[in-house]
Amino acid sequence: MSILQFRFAARLSRVPESFLDELFRVSADPAIISFAGGLPCTALIDTEGIARATNAVLEDDAGAALQYTTTDGYLPLREYIAQRYRARLGIAATADEIQIVNGSQQCLDLFAKIFLNPGDTVAMERPGYLGAIEAFSFYEPRISAVRLNDDGLDLTGFAHIISGEHPRFFYGIPNSQNPSGRTYSQDNRKAVAEILAPSDTIFYEDDAFGELFFDAKPRPPIKKYCPDQTVISGSFSKIIAPGMRIGWILAPRDIIQQFNIAKQAADLHSNFFCQKILHRYLTSCDIDARLRTITSVYQRKCRLMCELLDDLLPDLTHTHPEGGMFLMAELPPGLSSRRIFEEGIREHVAVLPGQPFYVDGGGNDTIRMNFSSPTEEQISEGLHRLTRVVRDLQ
Amino acid sequence: MSILQFRFAARLSRVPESFLDELFRVSADPAIISFAGGLPCTALIDTEGIARATNAVLEDDAGAALQYTTTDGYLPLREYIAQRYRARLGIAATADEIQIVNGSQQCLDLFAKIFLNPGDTVAMERPGYLGAIEAFSFYEPRISAVRLNDDGLDLTGFAHIISGEHPRFFYGIPNSQNPSGRTYSQDNRKAVAEILAPSDTIFYEDDAFGELFFDAKPRPPIKKYCPDQTVISGSFSKIIAPGMRIGWILAPRDIIQQFNIAKQAADLHSNFFCQKILHRYLTSCDIDARLRTITSVYQRKCRLMCELLDDLLPDLTHTHPEGGMFLMAELPPGLSSRRIFEEGIREHVAVLPGQPFYVDGGGNDTIRMNFSSPTEEQISEGLHRLTRVVRDLQ
Repeated sequence: MSILQFRFAARLSRVPESFLDELFRVSADPAIISFAGGLPCTALIDTEGIARATNAVLEDDAGAALQYTTTDGYLPLREYIAQRYRARLGIAATADEIQIVNGSQQCLDLFAKIFLNPGDTVAMERPGYLGAIEAFSFYEPRISAVRLNDDGLDLTGFAHIISGEHPRFFYGIPNSQNPSGRTYSQDNRKAVAEILAPSDTIFYEDDAFGELFFDAKPRPPIKKYCPDQTVISGSFSKIIAPGMRIGWILAPRDIIQQFNIAKQAADLHSNFFCQKILHRYLTSCDIDARLRTITSVYQRKCRLMCELLDDLLPDLTHTHPEGGMFLMAELPPGLSSRRIFEEGIREHVAVLPGQPFYVDGGGNDTIRMNFSSPTEEQISEGLHRLTRVVRDLQ
Repeated sequence: MSILQFRFAARLSRVPESFLDELFRVSADPAIISFAGGLPCTALIDTEGIARATNAVLEDDAGAALQYTTTDGYLPLREYIAQRYRARLGIAATADEIQIVNGSQQCLDLFAKIFLNPGDTVAMERPGYLGAIEAFSFYEPRISAVRLNDDGLDLTGFAHIISGEHPRFFYGIPNSQNPSGRTYSQDNRKAVAEILAPSDTIFYEDDAFGELFFDAKPRPPIKKYCPDQTVISGSFSKIIAPGMRIGWILAPRDIIQQFNIAKQAADLHSNFFCQKILHRYLTSCDIDARLRTITSVYQRKCRLMCELLDDLLPDLTHTHPEGGMFLMAELPPGLSSRRIFEEGIREHVAVLPGQPFYVDGGGNDTIRMNFSSPTEEQISEGLHRLTRVVRDLQ
């Protein structure tokens, strides 16, 4: 009950209204089956392996793990990440091109902070990741969007924006995109790199889901075709444990240097204890076997969701993910995703309206559906509930 | 070896050159006795108690602790913090006025983000905390400074800046200030609140050291005299473990609401695992007994440092801290702190030049000295080395 009128910065008026708080409230109600969130499956978090790694760190040198450290992050962890890039994707990567952050969300904030002046253009996919839109908005850019097709970016639109609008960077998720679940084809990646090469636009490749392909096979990153002009962000949130908030960025050294200054001013460094735990965990478990377990479960859940959608709601179309945690569905004509959300809550099923993912409007006939978090029983029961909601509104 | 010229944002040119990386390199050399850092004493981190709390969290519900959570932070931890404010300082505080962040450094970034437009005025102490100067600089404000005297802010200067420059907020550290080690007197706090009251400037009270008074007695915060116009930030870094990066802000709800939006866009939420560990630790140990142990050690170290300075370098003057981790010394005429730093490294002793703490220039005749991290033996040996350095330069 303050009498004072606080004078907030003008940039706040640029930030879109977030839907996430409403979502969290919804997800907290155990009666509701939620397809609206973005959580990895809790049952697949290797709590025993993480507990062993934690105890090893505590027995080893707890004092050091609980003390301050350098901004760049734990060197053995950065070396592990670099080595995995070299082995798995065949791209050159060294520890000094990697900066540890608080989940890949922090990359979005710090990258925008070092690259965007108010009024600058940044481009992204349409639909595009909401967390990125929110993070970028604080730096007051113009946000342009390129249509995302089933096989990747719309190349005409992409070329048009790169040459015509000269964006500081293009933000995209080539692997199992959020929210659509789409994956760029290899041809599309090559074409994107070719369009990019003559420009000075950076490609910001968010690779939160690249380890979650159902066939467990890596896809070549854009960085492979355009190494000096691409940065990649990654995260342990989707593959090990989100609660630790540990992610990273891989970028050319000139960028890492500025990024590091921004990171230091933002919070000095990321949780050192959990960086050590993660490194111990990664070097003592068979991470590829863990990933095969996770992706086989996600594949089953995704297939079940797709089959039930086709059976129960044949007039609704949807994407066919090769991995990740989401699919996107297009509603039959005349239905509003907001109404589906509101009526869904009454029927105890939650979906995420697609509209906030469209920076330039539209998308009201789309919903994002998460298949990683609910059980197969919940997917089945939830889709029956959703079907009742849709039928009642038709 | 990039061919591309990266187009960084203009705001980067506003960020002062950081000294911290050089410091970390220096501190990493075990031959060097460092008074230049800002680490709490590693030997006083209760690794056994933290290990017990960690295991309890892992046994309890590891899956939940390792999963995503809400942006505001773990409710029982926020309730603990609010309750401690009420009990210890007698100020009204509730969990919904508290937001968890990654150490109090993140408060600096997010608070500046929601309050500062480019060109706005923010005011702080002279000398002022370097981490704050760096964090604020990214938002391109004008930074004004008010002289900090032995008993607190220079009231004439403070009144002049509040009425004349209309700053969005004033940032200060009333308890054992960094870098000076000074503490505002109770009269000074009351006078500051009186000057503040008719304005709409917020007082941002950084209370990183308020639990570290050698007499273990709390000092009344500015917030007590000016509750609706003050925010307080706090941190577990100095009293429990910096490596966890957990701090908080206590602020009026209107501010918390905007702060929460900025936090969500910046990194979704702080490390949940460590929030749970901290809560478990705080509610299962005698935190006041721990603090008495810490402050009695710091008091001994501080007294030793002051006595040795008086004995060995009587022509150098210094502050007389009542708590915290730092003191500040003024060099005899003609000596430069940069030269002392450079020559000190040769003699294997590091001090922090004061100049970067003075936003409007000056301070080259001052050094900050940390007494929490070195042992008593190191303090003694290090001051003998420093004495040789000073004598050689005179």
